[in-house]
Amino acid sequence: MGNSLNVAVLGATGAVGQEFVRLFEQRKWPINELRLLASERSVGKRQAFAGRNLCVELAAPEAFAGIDVAFFSAGASRSREFAPEAVVRGATVIDNSSAFRMDPAVPLVVPEINFDAIQPGTKLVANPNCTAIVLLMAVAPLRALGKIERIVMSSYQSASGAGALAMDELVEQSKVILAGGKAEPVQFPHQCAFNVFSHNTPIDETGYNEEERKVIAESRKILGDPDLKINVTCVRVPVLRAHSESITVEFSGPAPSVESVRKALSGAPGVKVIDDRATNTFPMPVVASGQDDVFVGRIRQDLSNPNAVCLFASGDQLLKGAALNAVQIGERMLGLS
Amino acid sequence: MGNSLNVAVLGATGAVGQEFVRLFEQRKWPINELRLLASERSVGKRQAFAGRNLCVELAAPEAFAGIDVAFFSAGASRSREFAPEAVVRGATVIDNSSAFRMDPAVPLVVPEINFDAIQPGTKLVANPNCTAIVLLMAVAPLRALGKIERIVMSSYQSASGAGALAMDELVEQSKVILAGGKAEPVQFPHQCAFNVFSHNTPIDETGYNEEERKVIAESRKILGDPDLKINVTCVRVPVLRAHSESITVEFSGPAPSVESVRKALSGAPGVKVIDDRATNTFPMPVVASGQDDVFVGRIRQDLSNPNAVCLFASGDQLLKGAALNAVQIGERMLGLS
Repeated sequence: MGNSLNVAVLGATGAVGQEFVRLFEQRKWPINELRLLASERSVGKRQAFAGRNLCVELAAPEAFAGIDVAFFSAGASRSREFAPEAVVRGATVIDNSSAFRMDPAVPLVVPEINFDAIQPGTKLVANPNCTAIVLLMAVAPLRALGKIERIVMSSYQSASGAGALAMDELVEQSKVILAGGKAEPVQFPHQCAFNVFSHNTPIDETGYNEEERKVIAESRKILGDPDLKINVTCVRVPVLRAHSESITVEFSGPAPSVESVRKALSGAPGVKVIDDRATNTFPMPVVASGQDDVFVGRIRQDLSNPNAVCLFASGDQLLKGAALNAVQIGERMLGLS
Repeated sequence: MGNSLNVAVLGATGAVGQEFVRLFEQRKWPINELRLLASERSVGKRQAFAGRNLCVELAAPEAFAGIDVAFFSAGASRSREFAPEAVVRGATVIDNSSAFRMDPAVPLVVPEINFDAIQPGTKLVANPNCTAIVLLMAVAPLRALGKIERIVMSSYQSASGAGALAMDELVEQSKVILAGGKAEPVQFPHQCAFNVFSHNTPIDETGYNEEERKVIAESRKILGDPDLKINVTCVRVPVLRAHSESITVEFSGPAPSVESVRKALSGAPGVKVIDDRATNTFPMPVVASGQDDVFVGRIRQDLSNPNAVCLFASGDQLLKGAALNAVQIGERMLGLS
């Protein structure tokens, strides 16, 4: 189609925004103009892209004029402000924030699972929560083996989910502590280096935090199963950029065999099975980092429930957990893939 | 009783061994002689204890002559070798290794839970696996609220469980990676800094690793419930010395209220409830480190199962997970507490 596409990135200087730009270049998007948008304080920053030297511009309604597709990753309130402005100017918006995810009129999409939620004429698509994406990439392929009744998941979430400054905080705080100093958390409410803490989102009267409630609600919407039972505990670990998850999948009848689970996952697009019991090699965040696939392994029968299997997954939070999933949505909507 | 007690520590230079010595001093054990035993390569090392300057001696059968109580933490094969030698010389042995834990003739004890497993005349007591201890300290008090049918647990285990050299490896490897270098794992099979990996113990044909099998078997023995269903996934995280666990407890009937769980845990000896939803303050390994109590919080109804509650626990792996539990066993056997 030639380099005919005009693309905007809202939140271009953030951790996810940077991945968008890298992915457009890596995946050879046929881009005519790439418009990098951000708030006042980032305006004027330079950004290399495919041999061009781009300048970050101010996010404003008129910045979306002439844009074919816009990727948003600047937080929910920016998305609420600018999505209607972009759509009214003819752009298709793929929004990485939580603003529209649970809006019944907006498809919430993991392309390998429910691309068919996007209808002809859809102009706004929500990109799911990163923890939900990693979970569903591991779990959705098992629907072919039986009806899933309940999922129990505990997460091991990286700093990247809280943005570039949080990743910096993990690095700098680690140095301080190794030098005998004391942590002074800014991005996180607690020490992140050499520590583990409950996910730093508000907790409601049920005792669940917002991240956990997102995983439950979004997973149900993406799988089209509003009654799916989900037990989830979201926890931060001192890892830079891939989320890991310990997952138990309970079926309505006897669990499928380990071999059939391994086969279903091996054949699932976007999933890589890492499951070598002999060498104790399973998914790890340092190996999943920078990789497009979600890694799944530790496949085993749940010894406490004949109807359940256990898995462990790791996926790059900035890639399949955010920018890559959105870019894949865009590619399929635009007929690029 | 005056300072009349002759005490030996086998594995005195290890991470747990060092905690034994510190605890005897801190808890004012009435020690006449403290005999520090280790393998050839540590013989001659000096160790301060309560104003004395002790010298590490070679572990040998005759080293247990005249010893009243011996604490073992030098691995299962050393325990198998020396426990009979110590007992035959009149010592009571409290063994931190896995050597005798599942021996039906040897009590496996967490004093707050099953001190009554120790009979008059018991000369050998096994100290449980650290991950099992932290789990059971959080779960056992809930037995008063209903019959526990199943436990689902994913762990966040510290480097200390693999010993002092593993703790050093986490520190040194973190420095190397922060300086832009590459991890060269020695103590662990995988990079431990800024990473998460499945527990580094052998995996059997069920797909469970040895640590997980210990948690299952030992928990059943300690709770006296050979049919208790346990789903467990053991994972290492880059934390120095406290283990954390995400726990779901399923009862045979409707789950007790969050309030009644909080009350049961608040009244349990050795447990400290940290459960402040408003400030997002829950158990964390950096706070549990160096503390005697196991911290428990994130108490909430499992939204996926009306019969279940969720918890999160952190406990110092070297203290309640190892040395402190053994010392508490000794104190009760000796009538010191």
